[in-house]
Amino acid sequence: MKETSFLHIAEQYKAIFLDSYGVIKNYKGLIAGVQDTIDFIRHKGIALRILTNDASRSQHQQAESFYKLGIRTIETHEIITSGMMARQFLQNKIHAGRIAYLGTENSAEYILQSGLEHVSVRDIQLDHIEDISAFVFLDDEGFDWNTDINKTVNLLRRKNIPVIVANSDKLYPVSKNDVAVATGGIAKLVENMLTKKFIHFGKPDSQMFMYAFDQLNQKGFYSKDEILMVGDNLNTDILGGNKFGVKTTLVLSGNTSAENAEMQINASGIIPDYICNSIVS
Amino acid sequence: MKETSFLHIAEQYKAIFLDSYGVIKNYKGLIAGVQDTIDFIRHKGIALRILTNDASRSQHQQAESFYKLGIRTIETHEIITSGMMARQFLQNKIHAGRIAYLGTENSAEYILQSGLEHVSVRDIQLDHIEDISAFVFLDDEGFDWNTDINKTVNLLRRKNIPVIVANSDKLYPVSKNDVAVATGGIAKLVENMLTKKFIHFGKPDSQMFMYAFDQLNQKGFYSKDEILMVGDNLNTDILGGNKFGVKTTLVLSGNTSAENAEMQINASGIIPDYICNSIVS
Amino acid sequence: MKETSFLHIAEQYKAIFLDSYGVIKNYKGLIAGVQDTIDFIRHKGIALRILTNDASRSQHQQAESFYKLGIRTIETHEIITSGMMARQFLQNKIHAGRIAYLGTENSAEYILQSGLEHVSVRDIQLDHIEDISAFVFLDDEGFDWNTDINKTVNLLRRKNIPVIVANSDKLYPVSKNDVAVATGGIAKLVENMLTKKFIHFGKPDSQMFMYAFDQLNQKGFYSKDEILMVGDNLNTDILGGNKFGVKTTLVLSGNTSAENAEMQINASGIIPDYICNSIVS
Amino acid sequence: MKETSFLHIAEQYKAIFLDSYGVIKNYKGLIAGVQDTIDFIRHKGIALRILTNDASRSQHQQAESFYKLGIRTIETHEIITSGMMARQFLQNKIHAGRIAYLGTENSAEYILQSGLEHVSVRDIQLDHIEDISAFVFLDDEGFDWNTDINKTVNLLRRKNIPVIVANSDKLYPVSKNDVAVATGGIAKLVENMLTKKFIHFGKPDSQMFMYAFDQLNQKGFYSKDEILMVGDNLNTDILGGNKFGVKTTLVLSGNTSAENAEMQINASGIIPDYICNSIVS
Repeated sequence: MKETSFLHIAEQYKAIFLDSYGVIKNYKGLIAGVQDTIDFIRHKGIALRILTNDASRSQHQQAESFYKLGIRTIETHEIITSGMMARQFLQNKIHAGRIAYLGTENSAEYILQSGLEHVSVRDIQLDHIEDISAFVFLDDEGFDWNTDINKTVNLLRRKNIPVIVANSDKLYPVSKNDVAVATGGIAKLVENMLTKKFIHFGKPDSQMFMYAFDQLNQKGFYSKDEILMVGDNLNTDILGGNKFGVKTTLVLSGNTSAENAEMQINASGIIPDYICNSIVS
Repeated sequence: MKETSFLHIAEQYKAIFLDSYGVIKNYKGLIAGVQDTIDFIRHKGIALRILTNDASRSQHQQAESFYKLGIRTIETHEIITSGMMARQFLQNKIHAGRIAYLGTENSAEYILQSGLEHVSVRDIQLDHIEDISAFVFLDDEGFDWNTDINKTVNLLRRKNIPVIVANSDKLYPVSKNDVAVATGGIAKLVENMLTKKFIHFGKPDSQMFMYAFDQLNQKGFYSKDEILMVGDNLNTDILGGNKFGVKTTLVLSGNTSAENAEMQINASGIIPDYICNSIVS
Repeated sequence: MKETSFLHIAEQYKAIFLDSYGVIKNYKGLIAGVQDTIDFIRHKGIALRILTNDASRSQHQQAESFYKLGIRTIETHEIITSGMMARQFLQNKIHAGRIAYLGTENSAEYILQSGLEHVSVRDIQLDHIEDISAFVFLDDEGFDWNTDINKTVNLLRRKNIPVIVANSDKLYPVSKNDVAVATGGIAKLVENMLTKKFIHFGKPDSQMFMYAFDQLNQKGFYSKDEILMVGDNLNTDILGGNKFGVKTTLVLSGNTSAENAEMQINASGIIPDYICNSIVS
Repeated sequence: MKETSFLHIAEQYKAIFLDSYGVIKNYKGLIAGVQDTIDFIRHKGIALRILTNDASRSQHQQAESFYKLGIRTIETHEIITSGMMARQFLQNKIHAGRIAYLGTENSAEYILQSGLEHVSVRDIQLDHIEDISAFVFLDDEGFDWNTDINKTVNLLRRKNIPVIVANSDKLYPVSKNDVAVATGGIAKLVENMLTKKFIHFGKPDSQMFMYAFDQLNQKGFYSKDEILMVGDNLNTDILGGNKFGVKTTLVLSGNTSAENAEMQINASGIIPDYICNSIVS
């Protein structure tokens, strides 16, 4: 666990998993120099996947967004979002009824495209919930927090159904200094009110790692120690990567600053294999 | 711990502490027959105090509300609210600056009457917070949940000041079946986002018990085993009473139903000294 | 989620994952009739795996134990233990130094066979820990609780290394009524003392599900909705299965009794797809 | 909240509450110079109380210990221990049956002197527990951790009785670098196993503050803002003092070092009114 050149580390691995926010981009846009690193990874023939805790935009929308930012070599299938994991779960487990959600219409459309009808909490009448078969926390936007969070609490008190959190991040950055409560934070509030545990998707949970790992191994053979997870967040990227068994690199270009990286590592006991300033250099 | 007549129990004590909601009144108004019980307590010369987790209305407003409901013998000084405890704390500990709050203007006025200026989160500019010296969670109303909870998170990330929760209840009932997230629930959300612990007022914390106990002992001598706490909630009334060392009665007229009282007692390990259907009979 | 015949459910799936304790056997030995169910599964050509939170005995020792109990058709490779997952992790992530452990010599031998030296906490001198590169909670036996748990706390205060919990179960049954604190309970105590999070193996975490799933898919094609997880414990078997995305059956022959199954499901929000008395019938 | 001279602060208060370990003494014995500070407090006519989370020795034994260390002016009644609070609770609330305990014979004798028979967990037969009416966690010594902690778990699974933790400290220091798991840590383990909440005594809970405050006010008039709590531990001394409403001073002579005081204050949100190197100077 020593600070060192990212490119030097990267070239020792057969596959690299990159977190998006804080690694490739930040609140100002693309992190300068990232395109060169991605070119380097491509040139070396290293497989690349983007693992992002995001349930507000589809895989396709994410790819478009990278394209607009100037990174033109990331293909849609290389992007893995927590929202995709939630959708997969719903397809496997929920086969009837209506799926209720808290979030935007856009996120509902791509996540809940499982052939079942979906309904925003806003439009639910608590006296007509017989056919609600699952609930999904999708996004922190698209609803009235006061009215609709309370409605969610009462819906889930009245009906014991599977509850899915499509992105378990508690906060997301909105500017250099400030954050906003994310989907996972709202879900946590409701979990506390009900003293229940929902099903969470997104790092540090292993579904996205597993998905990326299985996808890679359909095209070749990749053992876990040939894969490097790169992220800016100890509690999601590094904890998740460590638990899954791949190597991990903490970058200091996002959530974790150079000043407090060591302190946070010591306090949490979450230890990356490497620390780099960023993926640029 | 056996079900029995409340009046029979009550007459063995020198002082009785009653929770308000679920004991004296419920979502429909006064619980039928409560007036007779209070007359009985008065007739027997037993001291009475109302201990209520409420920071939305002043002691005076509470007394008026009882009067309007038809209970005309409860005096203002017999009512003890968690909001009073918060006010007392602020008076003792905060002597300069502006006090920021989340809640209604009404609750701010009576709780924050300590000579210091107070300011709603709504009206704060995050770039001008130098003189904010404390923060108080007062009520679940009087602000925009989305905008102002996020603003609170960022304010408390930028400035490390004492944070007070004037009522730590997480939920309150709004109808026979439904509840709403209370001040304590919103405060818990923010605590989770910041991984900090705020200063909570209200049962089960002991400040209200202590206040009532000291007040009684200025007028006579009351030992703890001569006092009976009566409430409908294991986690606040009974836990708080047990911890403070007074006797406790769980009533089944509110939060805890006859069907699941035993199960909840076994699951929580919070054991009342008595169980009664209600304070009526 | 209705009580129904296990055999009738089972024959609709291509693969079945069985928990061991409370499903196949209990404190008295084999559950009567289990052999017939396993014969039925074999006869129908359904793939079978045993997923057990156990780090005290190797895959081979477990298979032998089933053989001695009279179930002669379970092959070693069909058994997946949390200890195997811990071993795999250590092989992937720890390549130097000595591995310290709390547990028996037997469990240390099979889990820590990664070419690295291992040392019991009992034999560690806290002044010579430079080369300790990881710590593993293996078993609740094989050490002095007072001396060696305290030594573990101090070792992990002095040195920030990866800490692995080879079985995250907090309790295990020792007779009809009684339980004992398990490895996961001891690890939880130490986590609380240090306010750190260790890396836990065993259900509900998904590593064992993933391992079984990948193993199956090397021999054929099994989608998640063709797999049924069967267990007696909502918090490990059912939560883990639900989260992984396979179908789940709660059996009432172990940890969860018929009387309180519904209450526990409502309280926890962990909802099995089916409930059966046992796998027998 | 600025570092400053303790004597200068002290003389502004009418009463001072001192924590013992880390403030008056440490693992090596008396902190040099403490006698002068206590003489100063006496000379100024400031009331003094020692508030210590300790259930292993009686008030009298503690006073003797100070005397032997050379502080000859601390009277027995000025010492307030968490064990005294537990004893008071038992006297108020438990009037029949036998009290079971985990701890030493010595601590049992002074805490459980309420006229009721007490019995060590070691000597309990789990088939004869009909008359056990309460359970007390007294000390981390005097029993076999493996056997007797497991016995405690099973006793409390079989019988739902009030459980008291006479000292809620999770750790105590045994040398410059090392700690040991304390009574409160063992109780926390058992609470986790049972998912129940016990009744905890000792700072940060307010019973000791309340006791000292009431005692003072029987001899004069002391308002909360005339009292200063001094301690080395943010989570017990400072949190408890802040919550009770007295002024607080963090000293850097014990648990909290000068290097990480600011970081810990920011991370926890527990803010002392003053910070001093020690009470000496």
